[in-house]
Amino acid sequence: MVSRHLKEAVLEANLALPQHGLVTFTWGNVSGIDRNSGLVVIKPSGVPYERLTVEDMVVVDLEGNVVEGELRPSSDTPTHLALYRSLPEIGGVVHTHSPWATSWAQAKRAIPAFGTTHADYFYGEIPCTRELTDEEIATAYELETGHVILETLDELMLEAVAVPGVLVANHAPFCWGKDANEAVHNAVVLEEVAKMGLHALNLNPGLTPIKQSILDKHYLRKHGANAYYGQK
Amino acid sequence: MVSRHLKEAVLEANLALPQHGLVTFTWGNVSGIDRNSGLVVIKPSGVPYERLTVEDMVVVDLEGNVVEGELRPSSDTPTHLALYRSLPEIGGVVHTHSPWATSWAQAKRAIPAFGTTHADYFYGEIPCTRELTDEEIATAYELETGHVILETLDELMLEAVAVPGVLVANHAPFCWGKDANEAVHNAVVLEEVAKMGLHALNLNPGLTPIKQSILDKHYLRKHGANAYYGQK
Amino acid sequence: MVSRHLKEAVLEANLALPQHGLVTFTWGNVSGIDRNSGLVVIKPSGVPYERLTVEDMVVVDLEGNVVEGELRPSSDTPTHLALYRSLPEIGGVVHTHSPWATSWAQAKRAIPAFGTTHADYFYGEIPCTRELTDEEIATAYELETGHVILETLDELMLEAVAVPGVLVANHAPFCWGKDANEAVHNAVVLEEVAKMGLHALNLNPGLTPIKQSILDKHYLRKHGANAYYGQK
Amino acid sequence: MVSRHLKEAVLEANLALPQHGLVTFTWGNVSGIDRNSGLVVIKPSGVPYERLTVEDMVVVDLEGNVVEGELRPSSDTPTHLALYRSLPEIGGVVHTHSPWATSWAQAKRAIPAFGTTHADYFYGEIPCTRELTDEEIATAYELETGHVILETLDELMLEAVAVPGVLVANHAPFCWGKDANEAVHNAVVLEEVAKMGLHALNLNPGLTPIKQSILDKHYLRKHGANAYYGQK
Repeated sequence: MVSRHLKEAVLEANLALPQHGLVTFTWGNVSGIDRNSGLVVIKPSGVPYERLTVEDMVVVDLEGNVVEGELRPSSDTPTHLALYRSLPEIGGVVHTHSPWATSWAQAKRAIPAFGTTHADYFYGEIPCTRELTDEEIATAYELETGHVILETLDELMLEAVAVPGVLVANHAPFCWGKDANEAVHNAVVLEEVAKMGLHALNLNPGLTPIKQSILDKHYLRKHGANAYYGQK
Repeated sequence: MVSRHLKEAVLEANLALPQHGLVTFTWGNVSGIDRNSGLVVIKPSGVPYERLTVEDMVVVDLEGNVVEGELRPSSDTPTHLALYRSLPEIGGVVHTHSPWATSWAQAKRAIPAFGTTHADYFYGEIPCTRELTDEEIATAYELETGHVILETLDELMLEAVAVPGVLVANHAPFCWGKDANEAVHNAVVLEEVAKMGLHALNLNPGLTPIKQSILDKHYLRKHGANAYYGQK
Repeated sequence: MVSRHLKEAVLEANLALPQHGLVTFTWGNVSGIDRNSGLVVIKPSGVPYERLTVEDMVVVDLEGNVVEGELRPSSDTPTHLALYRSLPEIGGVVHTHSPWATSWAQAKRAIPAFGTTHADYFYGEIPCTRELTDEEIATAYELETGHVILETLDELMLEAVAVPGVLVANHAPFCWGKDANEAVHNAVVLEEVAKMGLHALNLNPGLTPIKQSILDKHYLRKHGANAYYGQK
Repeated sequence: MVSRHLKEAVLEANLALPQHGLVTFTWGNVSGIDRNSGLVVIKPSGVPYERLTVEDMVVVDLEGNVVEGELRPSSDTPTHLALYRSLPEIGGVVHTHSPWATSWAQAKRAIPAFGTTHADYFYGEIPCTRELTDEEIATAYELETGHVILETLDELMLEAVAVPGVLVANHAPFCWGKDANEAVHNAVVLEEVAKMGLHALNLNPGLTPIKQSILDKHYLRKHGANAYYGQK
């Protein structure tokens, strides 16, 4: 069994998507995992946010079997589960078609770390996956979407905690965090960073990423043992 | 006679235009058809959305004769009717000057399928018509606007259901759907897709459309016999 | 004496500026004229819209003498008055720094008629003035701003009613209409047209204006003896 | 001791940041100084605006010692203090990551005075600092951020009152004013000017700044002994 608290947290994180302007219609879904039981709470497929209730939340196990709930889980569930299976350090996943980040995904470009806003949350460039092959698309599309995200992190030797989001080429972003709320937080940051990155490139087409020293400074000011941003 | 239900549905679809940010002033109109009687309900011309009532809705037959209502129908009525006469599979039509889609129409460019957001609703590029000739403009402008939309679908051998919208060159978009509500839904999608497509081109000027396999996957995930998005 | 009705109409038109997103802080002002008395009602200078009352409205004669009101009139009053003196057919004037139109003014470019949205209200390109000379700036800046707008209309042989707005180079737009309300209406249209024009150019850098036949069609559909848009 | 009035003014100025759309999450902070006591009131670090109370405001002296308050001051406090120490004419400082201004900062470009909106508040180009050195970043990052802003003003021989804001390269803007409220006012202006400047460049890539005579006219119309904008 999954706690009511987790269901409420996942519901709230889903409702935060329209509040932050990240979604049109039902184009986004958030999940959260209970690592003790290995159960995942996720938004039902195609249900408008304004009608969502705690009871609508779907509970699935890590193989995708519905354990609780009357409704079908999000069609992107296999992507979420692939991330949870391979990244034990994450507790929440979010997928949206937020317009600025999706524009980069459609352009098949990684978002370079052009400033400190980026560095405060993403420790380096936000990568874009390769395109899926025809076979991957035809067989288990949503699962393979998860795999190509993991492959991207692997190939670039990135830690999921330090780069909490990836753009899926042709498609849109997936973000994560220690829980559903932090995953959405990172999705909001990504959208801001995507918008400002595009405008900065517009103003300076030859723009290069910020240097390592300032990337370190800002990321480590907010993360890790020596963080000093916020309250203790 | 047309049911009160249809009038209410068309009213509601018209009111959805400002709610979705698709219109300035009265720059948009939605209609719906009752295929049994062949009667069309449409917004009256130039009446602000905030004052519209069910009683204001105008009923016309497929030749454009006003059958019910005190007010003049939208000046774009002949375009709507041309679409209904030739496309028996559609039940609702919407015209707006939504800014991103209109920018593409003014640029006289089709919107390529650059991503899955597009593919979820439009099965391929959203075409742009040729410009009307001086004679077409001078004689029956709104009717010819309908004809050039139909001509565009014909020449590209597109099914109206699979590509539920067309940009009219120099002008703005027309969208449709199985009813007035779905037509507006498609107009919202078009606007999002137009915005993201422009930004994606900005980031990658040589960008090409997504490949057929992923277009198929996303479109057919939501449409047709094997759809698996949403609730049963 | 000026009627309370005119003061209320000018107040309302001023309040419409923030409602339509045309102004930041106090960056805009609307006036209206009573042609019988030759008296002009205008916003007081630097007063926030949310605090404006009917009593705050300032009444000036066509030479700029304050006839009624405790507050200083807008610093742009001499521009408004220059327009009223030379253009007997107008009844309202508005000045804003609305961002898209102002971007064109700063770029010192006229906005070509790229589409029917433009043609519905502006019968051809929306011109941009030449820059003022140092002497014009030093002597009677606001008056000369009015003069350069009138000079622009004259040189291009434009009727103020058919092209109800001009961009002042380096500065921002001035619009007008038969009354204060219509002036603001035209300012909203200008802002939309400026936004879409920039995006259309982005998509098609070689874009040329729409042809005369469609410009005529749309403008005359809404204006003049044969107009058929809206209700009788 | 600092007056309750100053704390309330600084609180209000912080709350104005989300109201003007300048901040996402907690990405901004405002401070105000009492020049008699040399004490500075500043936002606590990482506390959401919607939860801020007068009691949360932190009081520090000009060396950064916390004099009053339970919470940690903003991590950007050393930057604010460096500005107060060197610029006796200012009474409020604000830092945000407002998206348009931040895009220019990321592009490492100064914003030229492209129009009168700019000239009304900033007497010439809004400069962008050099990048900090690795050593500056490693040792006292926030303090050095203040120093590089001051260095930029010095090198360009700018008066802080006449150019009330600077872009920090790779990072984001800092603005100031005679008090916290005016600092935020200038940050709003900067954001508008940054947006319109980018669009104007888009329309006219070779655009040059406005000439001195119009810069003088607009700036001096609002500032100094001969100002005539607003009420007496």
